[in-house]
Amino acid sequence: MNLDALYSELTLKANAKLALVVLDGLGDVATREQGYVTPLEAAATPNLDALAKDSAQGRMFPLGPGITPGSGPGHLGLFGYDPLEYQVGRGVIEALGLGMELLPGDVCARANFATLDTKGVVTDRRAGRIPTETCEKLCAMLAAKVKKIGDTQILIQAGKEHRFVVVFRGKNLEGPLTDADPNREGFAIPTVKPRDPKNAGQNKMAKLIGDFYKLALPIIANEKPANGFLMRGIAHQPHLPLFEDRYKLKPAALAVYPMYKGLAQLVGMKKIEGPRTIKEQFERYLAEYDNFDFFFIHYKYPDKYGEDGNFPAKRKAIEEFDEALPILLRKKPDVLAITGDHSTPCVIKGHSWHPQPVLLHSPYSGCDKLERFTETGANCGSLGLFEAKYLIRLMQANARLFDKFGA
Amino acid sequence: MNLDALYSELTLKANAKLALVVLDGLGDVATREQGYVTPLEAAATPNLDALAKDSAQGRMFPLGPGITPGSGPGHLGLFGYDPLEYQVGRGVIEALGLGMELLPGDVCARANFATLDTKGVVTDRRAGRIPTETCEKLCAMLAAKVKKIGDTQILIQAGKEHRFVVVFRGKNLEGPLTDADPNREGFAIPTVKPRDPKNAGQNKMAKLIGDFYKLALPIIANEKPANGFLMRGIAHQPHLPLFEDRYKLKPAALAVYPMYKGLAQLVGMKKIEGPRTIKEQFERYLAEYDNFDFFFIHYKYPDKYGEDGNFPAKRKAIEEFDEALPILLRKKPDVLAITGDHSTPCVIKGHSWHPQPVLLHSPYSGCDKLERFTETGANCGSLGLFEAKYLIRLMQANARLFDKFGA
Repeated sequence: MNLDALYSELTLKANAKLALVVLDGLGDVATREQGYVTPLEAAATPNLDALAKDSAQGRMFPLGPGITPGSGPGHLGLFGYDPLEYQVGRGVIEALGLGMELLPGDVCARANFATLDTKGVVTDRRAGRIPTETCEKLCAMLAAKVKKIGDTQILIQAGKEHRFVVVFRGKNLEGPLTDADPNREGFAIPTVKPRDPKNAGQNKMAKLIGDFYKLALPIIANEKPANGFLMRGIAHQPHLPLFEDRYKLKPAALAVYPMYKGLAQLVGMKKIEGPRTIKEQFERYLAEYDNFDFFFIHYKYPDKYGEDGNFPAKRKAIEEFDEALPILLRKKPDVLAITGDHSTPCVIKGHSWHPQPVLLHSPYSGCDKLERFTETGANCGSLGLFEAKYLIRLMQANARLFDKFGA
Repeated sequence: MNLDALYSELTLKANAKLALVVLDGLGDVATREQGYVTPLEAAATPNLDALAKDSAQGRMFPLGPGITPGSGPGHLGLFGYDPLEYQVGRGVIEALGLGMELLPGDVCARANFATLDTKGVVTDRRAGRIPTETCEKLCAMLAAKVKKIGDTQILIQAGKEHRFVVVFRGKNLEGPLTDADPNREGFAIPTVKPRDPKNAGQNKMAKLIGDFYKLALPIIANEKPANGFLMRGIAHQPHLPLFEDRYKLKPAALAVYPMYKGLAQLVGMKKIEGPRTIKEQFERYLAEYDNFDFFFIHYKYPDKYGEDGNFPAKRKAIEEFDEALPILLRKKPDVLAITGDHSTPCVIKGHSWHPQPVLLHSPYSGCDKLERFTETGANCGSLGLFEAKYLIRLMQANARLFDKFGA
């Protein structure tokens, strides 16, 4: 029997409120240049500190040691889905990030406008990073002329700069496919192929991509510099077991950015629209307290400023979070977990592999004798270092939602 | 090659004395109500403290994160057997707990006396928790009249209140079966079925349970309130690889309570009868020192008082253990591990999922610069947080019982 099956077997249905609060990119590293503190350590966080006194702490790695996850695997792990088992294509993630509403079976591709020479060789994979407005214009041109191929509907959505997304909505379509992208300049756009040559849906989809190129390339052939495009991460929206079935908890998502709403929706969480700030998110949590059992609350800014390498802004984002925290605590959930989906160290200016700190608070979490919630303190917490996919299992345990195993 | 096979291949035969001392339910959590200390932290433990100075510490989870184990999986893990791979039915555990001597192939069921209405519907699953004496009387009535079914011998043993155990000893019997228990009132007793319909031994056993009901129910039909019974956890004693074969160590068990003697016997440890207290157990260890290589010493009381939620009594039980410890240390084993089979926090009043602290002492264990053996200290120990089934591997390593892997 595997562990996942055991968890299912032991899962009880009971009344409990659980809240998973994700400070995106929370973890950081203390370097000499930053005075040997992390933004979390440098921040004034009286409310987190008070909570830490009655909480357990630890550190989590999103996947294997050393692996840096994107937002997709980072969040799937937090939702308790093994990111290696449940892979979400980049096309799907991009589409979710642009706020597109996906249907089961949709195949998504992330695309770049690019520059091709007269022989069709890629000379600039990003077409000189054209302005977003140009991208929007080009996407509108494509969308106006390519609406359907056979019985398959084509949806095109512009992103930032040279980026856009193409969604194929039709019958019996499947991914993943190889990329229509040489991944470097000086080569022609390769023809996409099914990853599994025997898969009928992938074969149909590969042919569709070829047809799409035939129709779309002539439309922008005379544009400069974006006279071509590349497509990557072509895959269908994966079938994920529903969160509510898996944990017997009715889940809601309080996120501001589309990608996190989308990721929550992938596992069947109810998107709650409206709040624009962490204060508004917490206030909405209070209002929705009785309507759900599990709340996923996403706060973007530590990641955003970590990506910028902006230490003071990341610290301040954490302080603003801390200031809002008492709103949530007005109706304290039975179990509260505060963590990141990954680390985004300022020194890296991007996602990283460093384990993110986690704080777990419940009447049964105990106290780790730590005065604050910090990366360094979490190293000595009772939760140890563990895979992020187990956090939800610890939350279930702390909510007394597991039966005992064996006599 | 899997890790278990590698351990086997590397295992050496050598002279070494190893002692695994289990303070049942040792781990706890520090809560505000308890002044932010655990019973282990509150206890005066000068002898453990002295030992801690030359020991490694860490924390262990019995199974996956968040899973609360029963005594069976808890101990199997400590003996180095993966509790998911080697599952022991509740019937077997109950039989062992009542001190029954089981033979290989015995199928055991835990049973409850219950109240049935005239249509056979269960109206009270515990027959109003009849006194133990009534249970003993009813069991004697059944045992007097149902001794054999075909070539299968029937053994019936009363437990506490409404509980009893039935052991089926015959040829080609196997479990597990479904329960003869609707698990709630208002329903009739379901007919048991084989878990695997193709398994001949399970089919034979399912028929036997039906025959047993036909013979046994009429015997108590006129009793009040216990005019029926339910049977659960029907399974045979599992075949476990023998401890001595697995580790090349001759093992002895010094336990007072029948269940722990029984669990030790399941893996082929020699039960040493006689001692009633931890002092007597340690004295007997001294006397038996030359006769065995591995000593499993079980101390029940931290769990017992944890289950009662009695913090002072749990603390005192730990202090009594500490007081006795110098007896053991008169002939210090080469490797000494002191831990629990799981945590039993006073705030939970039952087993829990919290990792138990472990202390490992040997000439090679090193020192973790910890002044005491506590949950909080163990969080920072060199052993880290690991699965309990690996403890015995660390003990083997510390006894220099593993060859090097590779050149």
